[in-house]
Amino acid sequence: MDFTSFLTSLTTSFLIFVVLMLVFAWLSRKPGNAVIYYPNRILKGLDPLEGSGSRSPFAWIREALNSTEADVISLSGVDTAVYFVFLTSALAILVLSGLMLLPLLLPVAATEHVKATTDTTSNGTFNNLDKLSMGNIEEKSPRLWVYLIGTYWVSFVTFYILWKAYKHVSELRAAALMSPEVKPEQFAVLVRDIPQVHGGQSRKEQIDSYFRTIHSETFYRSLVVTDNKEANKIWEELEGYRKKLARAEAVFAASKTLGTPEGTRPTNGVGFLGLIGKKVDTIDYCNEKINELIPKLESKQKTTIREKQQAAAIVFFNNRLAAASAAQAVHAQMPDSWTVTEAPEPRQIIWSNLTIKFYERKIRQSIVYVVVALTIFFYMIPIGLISAFTTLENLERLLPFLKPIVELNVIKTVLEAYLPQIALIVFLALLPKFLMMLSKAEGIPSVAHAVRATSGKYFYFTVLNVFIGVTVGGTLFSTFKDIEKHPNTIITVLGTGLPANATFFLTFVALQFFVGYGLELSRLVPLIIYHLKRKYLCKSEAEVKEAWAPGDFGYATTVPNDMLIITVVLCYSVIAPIIIPFGVVYFGIGWLVLRNQALKVYVPSYESYGRMWPHMHSRILAALIIYQITMLGYFGLKKFPFTVLLIPLIILSFLFTYICSKKFYRSFEATPLEVAYREVKEIPNLESIFRSFIPPSLRSEKFDDGDQFEDALSQFSRTGSSI
Amino acid sequence: MDFTSFLTSLTTSFLIFVVLMLVFAWLSRKPGNAVIYYPNRILKGLDPLEGSGSRSPFAWIREALNSTEADVISLSGVDTAVYFVFLTSALAILVLSGLMLLPLLLPVAATEHVKATTDTTSNGTFNNLDKLSMGNIEEKSPRLWVYLIGTYWVSFVTFYILWKAYKHVSELRAAALMSPEVKPEQFAVLVRDIPQVHGGQSRKEQIDSYFRTIHSETFYRSLVVTDNKEANKIWEELEGYRKKLARAEAVFAASKTLGTPEGTRPTNGVGFLGLIGKKVDTIDYCNEKINELIPKLESKQKTTIREKQQAAAIVFFNNRLAAASAAQAVHAQMPDSWTVTEAPEPRQIIWSNLTIKFYERKIRQSIVYVVVALTIFFYMIPIGLISAFTTLENLERLLPFLKPIVELNVIKTVLEAYLPQIALIVFLALLPKFLMMLSKAEGIPSVAHAVRATSGKYFYFTVLNVFIGVTVGGTLFSTFKDIEKHPNTIITVLGTGLPANATFFLTFVALQFFVGYGLELSRLVPLIIYHLKRKYLCKSEAEVKEAWAPGDFGYATTVPNDMLIITVVLCYSVIAPIIIPFGVVYFGIGWLVLRNQALKVYVPSYESYGRMWPHMHSRILAALIIYQITMLGYFGLKKFPFTVLLIPLIILSFLFTYICSKKFYRSFEATPLEVAYREVKEIPNLESIFRSFIPPSLRSEKFDDGDQFEDALSQFSRTGSSI
Repeated sequence: MDFTSFLTSLTTSFLIFVVLMLVFAWLSRKPGNAVIYYPNRILKGLDPLEGSGSRSPFAWIREALNSTEADVISLSGVDTAVYFVFLTSALAILVLSGLMLLPLLLPVAATEHVKATTDTTSNGTFNNLDKLSMGNIEEKSPRLWVYLIGTYWVSFVTFYILWKAYKHVSELRAAALMSPEVKPEQFAVLVRDIPQVHGGQSRKEQIDSYFRTIHSETFYRSLVVTDNKEANKIWEELEGYRKKLARAEAVFAASKTLGTPEGTRPTNGVGFLGLIGKKVDTIDYCNEKINELIPKLESKQKTTIREKQQAAAIVFFNNRLAAASAAQAVHAQMPDSWTVTEAPEPRQIIWSNLTIKFYERKIRQSIVYVVVALTIFFYMIPIGLISAFTTLENLERLLPFLKPIVELNVIKTVLEAYLPQIALIVFLALLPKFLMMLSKAEGIPSVAHAVRATSGKYFYFTVLNVFIGVTVGGTLFSTFKDIEKHPNTIITVLGTGLPANATFFLTFVALQFFVGYGLELSRLVPLIIYHLKRKYLCKSEAEVKEAWAPGDFGYATTVPNDMLIITVVLCYSVIAPIIIPFGVVYFGIGWLVLRNQALKVYVPSYESYGRMWPHMHSRILAALIIYQITMLGYFGLKKFPFTVLLIPLIILSFLFTYICSKKFYRSFEATPLEVAYREVKEIPNLESIFRSFIPPSLRSEKFDDGDQFEDALSQFSRTGSSI
Repeated sequence: MDFTSFLTSLTTSFLIFVVLMLVFAWLSRKPGNAVIYYPNRILKGLDPLEGSGSRSPFAWIREALNSTEADVISLSGVDTAVYFVFLTSALAILVLSGLMLLPLLLPVAATEHVKATTDTTSNGTFNNLDKLSMGNIEEKSPRLWVYLIGTYWVSFVTFYILWKAYKHVSELRAAALMSPEVKPEQFAVLVRDIPQVHGGQSRKEQIDSYFRTIHSETFYRSLVVTDNKEANKIWEELEGYRKKLARAEAVFAASKTLGTPEGTRPTNGVGFLGLIGKKVDTIDYCNEKINELIPKLESKQKTTIREKQQAAAIVFFNNRLAAASAAQAVHAQMPDSWTVTEAPEPRQIIWSNLTIKFYERKIRQSIVYVVVALTIFFYMIPIGLISAFTTLENLERLLPFLKPIVELNVIKTVLEAYLPQIALIVFLALLPKFLMMLSKAEGIPSVAHAVRATSGKYFYFTVLNVFIGVTVGGTLFSTFKDIEKHPNTIITVLGTGLPANATFFLTFVALQFFVGYGLELSRLVPLIIYHLKRKYLCKSEAEVKEAWAPGDFGYATTVPNDMLIITVVLCYSVIAPIIIPFGVVYFGIGWLVLRNQALKVYVPSYESYGRMWPHMHSRILAALIIYQITMLGYFGLKKFPFTVLLIPLIILSFLFTYICSKKFYRSFEATPLEVAYREVKEIPNLESIFRSFIPPSLRSEKFDDGDQFEDALSQFSRTGSSI
């Protein structure tokens, strides 16, 4: 890539961004689109456009800049605020690095008179960049000292910013956990791996008596986890009919206003998908079905609560301190039974995972790790196979009816160009979902935890395949075989491979921020889907609401993507400092755009009180260490005699990691007692706390006060021993 | 070494053992030696010879065999019982392995007809052994299958025995912790890293208010750790004079009965060591000094308690459950302050370590690890230097007055033979003390923990230097440099080096058990020292008692020695199964002799409720894995095509380690609540529990009820803020 085409690509990306921003400014002002551009405000009951003042196209930028962390927490929760701490930290690291490195390193490189340069940072086609990079410095040159100082500077800046950020996040977390508002999960613990019941006791009796003995004064009651598969099925069926009824009623009402005053009562078949079978009146049919299902569900609820009790429970305490304290203590003499952990929020519990046994979880975990490792190392194999299989000839042979279309010249050209990549594109699109499925299969009890696990897996995938894969230019597997034989080569591999690919990554970063954030801000895709759905599919209010439901941030993919950018920019920061402004723009625009989305669009689907942070922290450190090792290799190649001075820096990074984990990590794993003992605002309604954990399919339909659950349980306790 | 000289060495060792056993039988029957052979029984207030029935020379064997685990626990504590579980497990592993391997492998090896053997297990000089070992099997022979099965058998036997043992020890520990007897340490926690005091509070107020807020219902009171250096000095001086007084009175009383009825009052000088200066009457002098020191100590105690409060404390709770629960919870939002752990027994607290700050502990730990690593890898360097320096010529030149003695022919020969080794011998004798010193320097708060840390360090030293050192036959450092460059060679290094040294280790094990345990049983050295001391040094009762004080087991050195034997025997178990009986005899005799010593001799100086076990367990597993890797290498050398079948076995070992640590370890780290909630026998006297933690130098001399401590503290709390 020469300089002109680099500039062209940059300008194009920038123009796309500007266009998307203008599109956003225009579309977001139409009231009909408010549900796409302001769903979070609408769901919070706020006026979508309130506080925007004049509707200038760039008002959103001012609003984003003026918003405080407290605004973010109140509108979107602690997890979102922590994500902004992450973005701010990345930005701060790059800005501080840039302020020192750009004025220091660029002149040093530009003024070097090289006799015959063989070293290049752009595969030899991009001389303007080469002149400004470390490749331009002669071997053994004393000018390398400046680069060494640069390497130290970036590391210390990272340490400083990360330390401050960890402290800040730790305080955010503590403040949220200390808040006087009653949060049900703070009064509960999750108990798993409950041993066999002996002596005619029921599960519930066993659990109650165990906790009542140990926590005699603070135990409130327990909610035994049940196998809800059957109840869920009936409940889902019931909910399906309810939706159908609402839809039919909406259609009927619409037909009344539009057509005949009596309206046309919608009908449907009773067979497959409502398309075949005897035609019936939908409203009557649904009402009938609902009336049929409600008692069925009720009796199933009763039998589930009574007979399907599993070896796991949510145990409630009458204050937060007792719950926090119990969640941290080993309960059983054999610590693989009665394992007690903090309870997740009710909305994010993965119920089916709660009853997976201790060793089964460990085994599942190991299997998942192996599968992930295989995916990372060998993902090209299945894709290669699929690509080899999905040629035009094969398509024509297998699906002969496609032949006339495929034979068209235009389509043929396009297909021939893209078919080989389709497998890769489909694979990369499905990968996060696949990794999430794997993470859930580990037996993790909460969605937040599964998201963290997915984010970790995706991070390894991107860093190893995109970053190191591009760098070493071969398959990961063959590289690792080399490294396994000669462990010291890992340093030279990075040192030789990385510098040659600077321009590739420059363009990569630029594309990410201009096009990626442009699409993010303008929300073109959700907008189009929403309007299509509203026009052709949605009839009832609930369906419309479902169509614009904004979703959450999707940390499982956004965080690893940001991490990849940090890794790339850090690794090139000293070798080709010109990359730093690109990184700054990425995180700067990212901060702005996502701040807007956080305040107005996304609705978090769970709250983990910043437990994502330690993962972000340690991955930034991992990026830093990759960078330091790269530099070690590159300085070595430059035959700089003081290269060895980088080794203390690497040791320091590990030390910093260790100290941070000792200083901060434990209070993210558990709630410190100092935090948990704070008083709540009012005397907590323990009964409603308990009720909030009852899964929807077991909630009573008739009585809102949920006496039934109570009854079933108490009755059960009285009769006992049906298991 | 040929077969005859091997047999000679074996017979000699055995004869020494028999002689020492007879010596023991003879000496132990003399009543004057009872304090050497039965000190534990005497200190427990039991009749030394009770229950021995007929005094046959082998009665001790029957007594040892008839003793139950409960006897051991009641006479010597849980830690000793756990040590016997360890010995029994080692014995069981070897017996079960031997039962299968000896009848299986020896005939297979003996009936093999080798064309030209180049493989040897005795450096080529010991053909009788070679014929019975795996070296006798031809390359690629199908007979190697039997050896493969043998390798699996030993591993599974180890897994089985270790699993049962861990479970048993876990139950022992739980039973001891559940016991209804009041043990002060179960009501207390150790709090370290207390942050700066703010706002005119005193340390004690700070600590009390912190714990009273969090544990409002269970907090009893706190004991602030003070800097007792000065008080200790005065107290030691006082104790010194007290001893001197008792001694002088004993001498005076003796002189009264022996000589003149008025007796001779002993005198001493007031100068250096009582040898120079004005002569004074010792009894008067000591009384005067004591009367002078008591008020001095009292005022120093008061000022210490008031003004020397440190950032650490022992905090007491009014029940065991609260203490166990508090010890497991993170208290502070920043987990590097207010670190709470279980309190050690008062008698084993290392007071000066309690106040070392969190990061200082970590730094000290790192430094200690580096020092230990250097000691292990380079211990030959200082020894070599010292040996080079301490030649006869140098000695004569530096200490010319020795010349006439050194020039004597006999002495010269002996000196020339032993001088080079003296440095090594001195080094090896001092090593455990040096390692203990290092472990204490880490900032460990209790003696039991320091002993575990020392044992670990010593284990690495012995296994790496004695075992692997002898095997690879070079310096460890050069071997490790090879391994670092070609990591896969570690397997071949062990596979080639080990088999050639079988006879060396056979003799080594035999020497260990016959001579080592012979000396242990007969206690010749303590006996001689005691009689010498009693005759020439000891005058008062207290001094005599001090002279026969039996000490404890010294796990820091005994356990690593046993571990070395296990490692050696396991590694050779399949290669040269003839070593197994030697191992069985080692642990069999060891069990017998040490059982006798546990019941009658040693008095444990602390009780850690079996916390040594996880360390023993994981080191036996480490030995097993070394063994499996050795076998992998050796099968590889034999070009056995199914060598790869050993890899699942190694993975299995790691899996077993992981499962055990998950299943059992946490209940050794902390007291499970299920164990801690049990009721104690009587309502505990919290005041006496509190008092038992007051260091001796701060205990009140005048009032036994310790009002002074109370007064000083309460007065202090009232006046407050002198810090």
